[in-house]
Amino acid sequence: MSGADFPREVVGMRRALHRHPETGFLEYRTASLVAGRLDALGYALRIGPEVMRAEAMLAPPSDREIALAREAAIAAGGDGRWMARMPGGQTAVVAELRRGDGPVTALRFDMDALPVQEATDAAHTPARLGFASARPGMMHACGHDGHVAIGLAVAERLAAPEAAWRGTLRLIFQPAEEGGRGALPMVEAGVLDDVDLFLAGHLGCLLPSGQVATAANGFLWSVRQDVLFHGRPAHAAMAPEAGRNALLAAAAAALGLHAMPRHGSGVTHVNVGRLEAGRARNVVGDTARMEIEYRAETEAILEGLAERAGHVIRGAAMMQGATVEVIARGHSVSAVSDPAVRTRVAAAAAQAGIGRIVAEWPIGGGDDATFMMRRVQARGGRAGYCLIGADLAAGHHDGAFDFDEAVLEPAVRLFAALVEAG
Amino acid sequence: MSGADFPREVVGMRRALHRHPETGFLEYRTASLVAGRLDALGYALRIGPEVMRAEAMLAPPSDREIALAREAAIAAGGDGRWMARMPGGQTAVVAELRRGDGPVTALRFDMDALPVQEATDAAHTPARLGFASARPGMMHACGHDGHVAIGLAVAERLAAPEAAWRGTLRLIFQPAEEGGRGALPMVEAGVLDDVDLFLAGHLGCLLPSGQVATAANGFLWSVRQDVLFHGRPAHAAMAPEAGRNALLAAAAAALGLHAMPRHGSGVTHVNVGRLEAGRARNVVGDTARMEIEYRAETEAILEGLAERAGHVIRGAAMMQGATVEVIARGHSVSAVSDPAVRTRVAAAAAQAGIGRIVAEWPIGGGDDATFMMRRVQARGGRAGYCLIGADLAAGHHDGAFDFDEAVLEPAVRLFAALVEAG
Amino acid sequence: MSGADFPREVVGMRRALHRHPETGFLEYRTASLVAGRLDALGYALRIGPEVMRAEAMLAPPSDREIALAREAAIAAGGDGRWMARMPGGQTAVVAELRRGDGPVTALRFDMDALPVQEATDAAHTPARLGFASARPGMMHACGHDGHVAIGLAVAERLAAPEAAWRGTLRLIFQPAEEGGRGALPMVEAGVLDDVDLFLAGHLGCLLPSGQVATAANGFLWSVRQDVLFHGRPAHAAMAPEAGRNALLAAAAAALGLHAMPRHGSGVTHVNVGRLEAGRARNVVGDTARMEIEYRAETEAILEGLAERAGHVIRGAAMMQGATVEVIARGHSVSAVSDPAVRTRVAAAAAQAGIGRIVAEWPIGGGDDATFMMRRVQARGGRAGYCLIGADLAAGHHDGAFDFDEAVLEPAVRLFAALVEAG
Amino acid sequence: MSGADFPREVVGMRRALHRHPETGFLEYRTASLVAGRLDALGYALRIGPEVMRAEAMLAPPSDREIALAREAAIAAGGDGRWMARMPGGQTAVVAELRRGDGPVTALRFDMDALPVQEATDAAHTPARLGFASARPGMMHACGHDGHVAIGLAVAERLAAPEAAWRGTLRLIFQPAEEGGRGALPMVEAGVLDDVDLFLAGHLGCLLPSGQVATAANGFLWSVRQDVLFHGRPAHAAMAPEAGRNALLAAAAAALGLHAMPRHGSGVTHVNVGRLEAGRARNVVGDTARMEIEYRAETEAILEGLAERAGHVIRGAAMMQGATVEVIARGHSVSAVSDPAVRTRVAAAAAQAGIGRIVAEWPIGGGDDATFMMRRVQARGGRAGYCLIGADLAAGHHDGAFDFDEAVLEPAVRLFAALVEAG
Repeated sequence: MSGADFPREVVGMRRALHRHPETGFLEYRTASLVAGRLDALGYALRIGPEVMRAEAMLAPPSDREIALAREAAIAAGGDGRWMARMPGGQTAVVAELRRGDGPVTALRFDMDALPVQEATDAAHTPARLGFASARPGMMHACGHDGHVAIGLAVAERLAAPEAAWRGTLRLIFQPAEEGGRGALPMVEAGVLDDVDLFLAGHLGCLLPSGQVATAANGFLWSVRQDVLFHGRPAHAAMAPEAGRNALLAAAAAALGLHAMPRHGSGVTHVNVGRLEAGRARNVVGDTARMEIEYRAETEAILEGLAERAGHVIRGAAMMQGATVEVIARGHSVSAVSDPAVRTRVAAAAAQAGIGRIVAEWPIGGGDDATFMMRRVQARGGRAGYCLIGADLAAGHHDGAFDFDEAVLEPAVRLFAALVEAG
Repeated sequence: MSGADFPREVVGMRRALHRHPETGFLEYRTASLVAGRLDALGYALRIGPEVMRAEAMLAPPSDREIALAREAAIAAGGDGRWMARMPGGQTAVVAELRRGDGPVTALRFDMDALPVQEATDAAHTPARLGFASARPGMMHACGHDGHVAIGLAVAERLAAPEAAWRGTLRLIFQPAEEGGRGALPMVEAGVLDDVDLFLAGHLGCLLPSGQVATAANGFLWSVRQDVLFHGRPAHAAMAPEAGRNALLAAAAAALGLHAMPRHGSGVTHVNVGRLEAGRARNVVGDTARMEIEYRAETEAILEGLAERAGHVIRGAAMMQGATVEVIARGHSVSAVSDPAVRTRVAAAAAQAGIGRIVAEWPIGGGDDATFMMRRVQARGGRAGYCLIGADLAAGHHDGAFDFDEAVLEPAVRLFAALVEAG
Repeated sequence: MSGADFPREVVGMRRALHRHPETGFLEYRTASLVAGRLDALGYALRIGPEVMRAEAMLAPPSDREIALAREAAIAAGGDGRWMARMPGGQTAVVAELRRGDGPVTALRFDMDALPVQEATDAAHTPARLGFASARPGMMHACGHDGHVAIGLAVAERLAAPEAAWRGTLRLIFQPAEEGGRGALPMVEAGVLDDVDLFLAGHLGCLLPSGQVATAANGFLWSVRQDVLFHGRPAHAAMAPEAGRNALLAAAAAALGLHAMPRHGSGVTHVNVGRLEAGRARNVVGDTARMEIEYRAETEAILEGLAERAGHVIRGAAMMQGATVEVIARGHSVSAVSDPAVRTRVAAAAAQAGIGRIVAEWPIGGGDDATFMMRRVQARGGRAGYCLIGADLAAGHHDGAFDFDEAVLEPAVRLFAALVEAG
Repeated sequence: MSGADFPREVVGMRRALHRHPETGFLEYRTASLVAGRLDALGYALRIGPEVMRAEAMLAPPSDREIALAREAAIAAGGDGRWMARMPGGQTAVVAELRRGDGPVTALRFDMDALPVQEATDAAHTPARLGFASARPGMMHACGHDGHVAIGLAVAERLAAPEAAWRGTLRLIFQPAEEGGRGALPMVEAGVLDDVDLFLAGHLGCLLPSGQVATAANGFLWSVRQDVLFHGRPAHAAMAPEAGRNALLAAAAAALGLHAMPRHGSGVTHVNVGRLEAGRARNVVGDTARMEIEYRAETEAILEGLAERAGHVIRGAAMMQGATVEVIARGHSVSAVSDPAVRTRVAAAAAQAGIGRIVAEWPIGGGDDATFMMRRVQARGGRAGYCLIGADLAAGHHDGAFDFDEAVLEPAVRLFAALVEAG
């Protein structure tokens, strides 16, 4: 499929994107199609290193992962010309259109999918209708396919001659929102520095179809860590006592981290999402690696949680006579939507014909758009984060996740109305 | 390096083999060099499917692993002509020489290495002398390089015109002794069915240099299992309660398995040697896979241990609302050396000039040569398993493992003397 | 000390009570002194079985515990005449004063202490000033000593001839608030059935001195369980394999329960507060008992949590081949303060000279006064729960807990003003 | 029942003793009846402090436990006159008879029972025949009732005028064999210092009825420890994060200790036999106490095991931010029977009509008679430990333990023959 064949209407776009999920910093097909479409619409493009500071990318993919992702992207109709401008996993695309003087309005859309196996049963609409993921073990399980589709449709609508707005429109297509790695490199490249009005949003989040929340609350502070345990191998039967069992250290640490106390005054979350340990069945497991995420309602609670986690991890290592390394893998911050933006979102939603407008709604997870919001606010601009209600078939990140596509079109109208009201 | 360049003396052979370790069912370079050498010596060869029943191979390598192993073998001087006769990881080589009528004598030598990272410091002789493993993460950490070198030297000595023996000499070069997967396919291919005298042996095992044990004892019964836990993914912050945490199920199972009670009347060992779980940092870990080995002194103790392990595994799954599959990955049996073979080993050791002969010594681990011993004994032949004492730098399966090479030459004399005493 | 010697001013009363903490359903000294004082003030008393339904008492103390508590109460100046009316741990006291027609106003004060060892260092005011607990391992670590002192002072003030109020005043001195066992038996005895206005309150809760919250929020639903694991004993060295280790089942369950996932949409808490297992060092631990409390923000979240806990507990038992019993030990409900009561609390606080009035404040823990609130509301009355700010030396239930006694006098004025405003 | 009523034949004695089990250092009834009987037979008695060094008693019972045990002993027919000579749990009795010059021969019989609940079903012979334990939670589950009965019968037989032996006969009735606490205080009091021939023995141990092992092997070295974890209490819902959870530290330590690796070259055993933690359901558990026993085949393996256990315990504490104390509670040593004693046991067994004599048999558990054996051997005497085969209904320390009483009478003959063969 070439860019020219890519559907024009928003539901079609979403389905075409859903079929080819790409994980963070590997969105080669998605980003190249986005670039092709926006270029065709007359937007000025900045791509890859122009809008991402490579040094600020956490855990970038390996050369091998990139090569495989590019190969798969090409095979699925990705556009190699644009991909050539995205070295090293730098898959961000920023598109700009200027209509005379006026404020700089930036909208953020995230593009990445997740390493989740999509459901295959007929109860799952993408499977039944034939647009489920074509890539084993990867899935748009958080709705970013919808976000990109909205972004492209907004781009088209506002590029039309009859669209009534003035100033500068900047559309930010961000990679690697999951894991919170994509926003910071774009912030550090200066993409947000001159923005007057910034808006990001998310579909779903347990807000029903037909509703919009003018601001998301409940953004959590978070820290991500990798933990490496180093033990000592030994023959598991001849001399198990000579081993230092890093596998069991990791097992105890995983249980201990999940068993850390809740906090009396604020939300906390802990997840050991990945654990890999040992080398062979008959050798005492001498290495282990865990990927962990901590989240908390406030910075102080997060710090307390992370400190306690350090005790858990070091104690578990000591229990096995193992040593341990903790490697920082990024962090997230909280942010608050400006009242001025909330008001404009409410007005735009009303204009878009969305019946029920709620003031705030919990985002549940998090979104590294908060780094962008804080930068805009720090430079004197206004920033906000809205939620677009959408009935869900299953929770975010679940293999049976799916959302009510009927909300896409009103969402497009909302973003367009917001810009036109500029 | 081609086969022709391969050294002729036993220490040189051992070092050349040490440098290119290959794990079970992937011994392409080793087996092809063995085949080339034995062919040149005039032995009749049977290779791969001729001496291994493919259906009896447990956990054979994937096509991709085989392709990579062949590529590496070729690059390191392996002989592609022989490798062509070893499809699907069937790397066994059986060489036979006949000198008139007489008994069939079979000697077994195992060829595989381990997924252990070799030590690199100067205290480690292979590193200091430059023959340490050239393959990251793989190592001859159990002395099978020495076994192959002994086998080749024995082959050469007994092929010499002056060698005084009659009957049939069968040299069995077995793959995949680690994990106990290689012997059974050879037994089921009938390689042992007509053997009158069978001997296998092992270097080291904490028996000092200069000693031989005419029989190893302490062979353990064992069972190997892979365990798969299936949970349910969920966003780790938005709805962790919707997840079913297979990663934590595996962690609890690993701890619980190692914590199973010892037995009051016999040795047991348990090892969860490998654990892999979860897919992403911010998703509740919905899958887990463990590789486990259970060993016990008697069949009855092993059965009790395995039954209890089933409770541990299913209970750990239930704790997380996960489901679980247990996949059999083979087993080992115990075997006892025949007194007649012990006597012959003692005589051969004396003739080989080995000063101190002990009747029995614990093998510590295990060896699937026991399958061969039992088959020989079941068909009316005699079988034995001896230990060749060798001072060690570190325990078997340790990255600093190394053995006293001075024991190689006497070992060659011992095996040759045994056959010549036929 | 006899009742006659008991101090009259509120700080003195609090200190005298602090020195003799009594745990739930064993408040013999406290309740007898309360009864004596209120009787002397002219209140009509109902005591023990008259105001508690014995069948509704969960986990009542044993006869032996009661005998020891009575003995200690007598030794510390408790009044045996009143104690005689409190069989079987039924230590509730309800005092009533009537002044013509008018509404029935009920105030609830809880009397029980905790099995916490009080701090002994000079930084701890009760220790420094000599009124720390005289009973090893028991302590007023939640401020109920203050509550009782306030209640007695309010009783005295409102019994004075000059006190301007009409109707019926009912003072409820409740046992066993900790663990949530004391309120329900009083509700079921009908003590709340005719109440028009009900108010309970709590000191501290992280609200600073000089403030009052007109309503507490964050009452959590809770369930309490005891869990018994039954295994099989065995000689720990001769035949450990014959045992079924209930001790390890409980250990795994405790870790697994604390490691249950947080909920994405509401607060949860889990605590295994007590664990007792095994019988002797050299016997496999064949019995275990755990005391657990689950709390959650909504009834639905609590149900999900308790269901998952069932899996954890049964799975941990299965891991050890043990069996398990789960015994219900009561539950708590949430309740909401009526706006009318909030308004009256605000007015009374202002009248009492308390400077800063906040609308709501989280209670943090819970209080089974919610059972009383719900009964009053169900019968058409109004109910509320206020918080009296008090600076704390350490958190509730901590051995160094202490509160700013300067808040006692204003609290007395607040309750009295509320009644007088009737 | 007074001493006078105590049965004279060995099966009756065993049953009478079985009915009143007493745990270590609390064998007041048993020891007083033993003393009364031996006194009546003409033996010279040394009792309590005369034959036990109080300073060498590990974990002696509390005054309260002693008072309760004495009370129960009196109620069950214990003889207060003898008990008066046993202060502080010093319940040992040494009886001596001299017949002219000759060697000093000492026989050891242990008296204590276990804190095990006896089976009550009809399949359990003591229950069916009405001589099961009358004391809830206590049981002669290791056969020491049989040992005492044998000792008394031997005493009677050898006191008879027709008994043909010369020299000094010393009968040692030892308390607290379980837990290995009773022998050392007697050794340190000098009871063994002049012994020429020492024999101890045990019933059962999986050796069938009708057999005797002239020596037990497999005595294990052992260490006993109590571990105290100190955390910090906190309200489990208001501020769980302020707590330091000693209960969970103990849970993780218990699992981690049982999961310590087996040893490749020798038997090990670990048992956390008792765990008590926390104070109340709604308080974070701030204290925990564990009773642990480690055993190993050699002193070196035991030291390695104990060192590793230290890491497990300290690591588990660190995981929870708790502190930890480890308190030594004694140790056991191994000992080897002298060949001369083995020969004499074999001869005596033959004379006693016991059909099948085996040279060695594993004891399975351990016995602190090894301290006595070592002292005798250190002073130039000869020592041995034999096993009296006895079919068992269930394993030692199991609530359904029972042994074949038919072996008692031959055992009496064996010990008597040994002395008479002097």
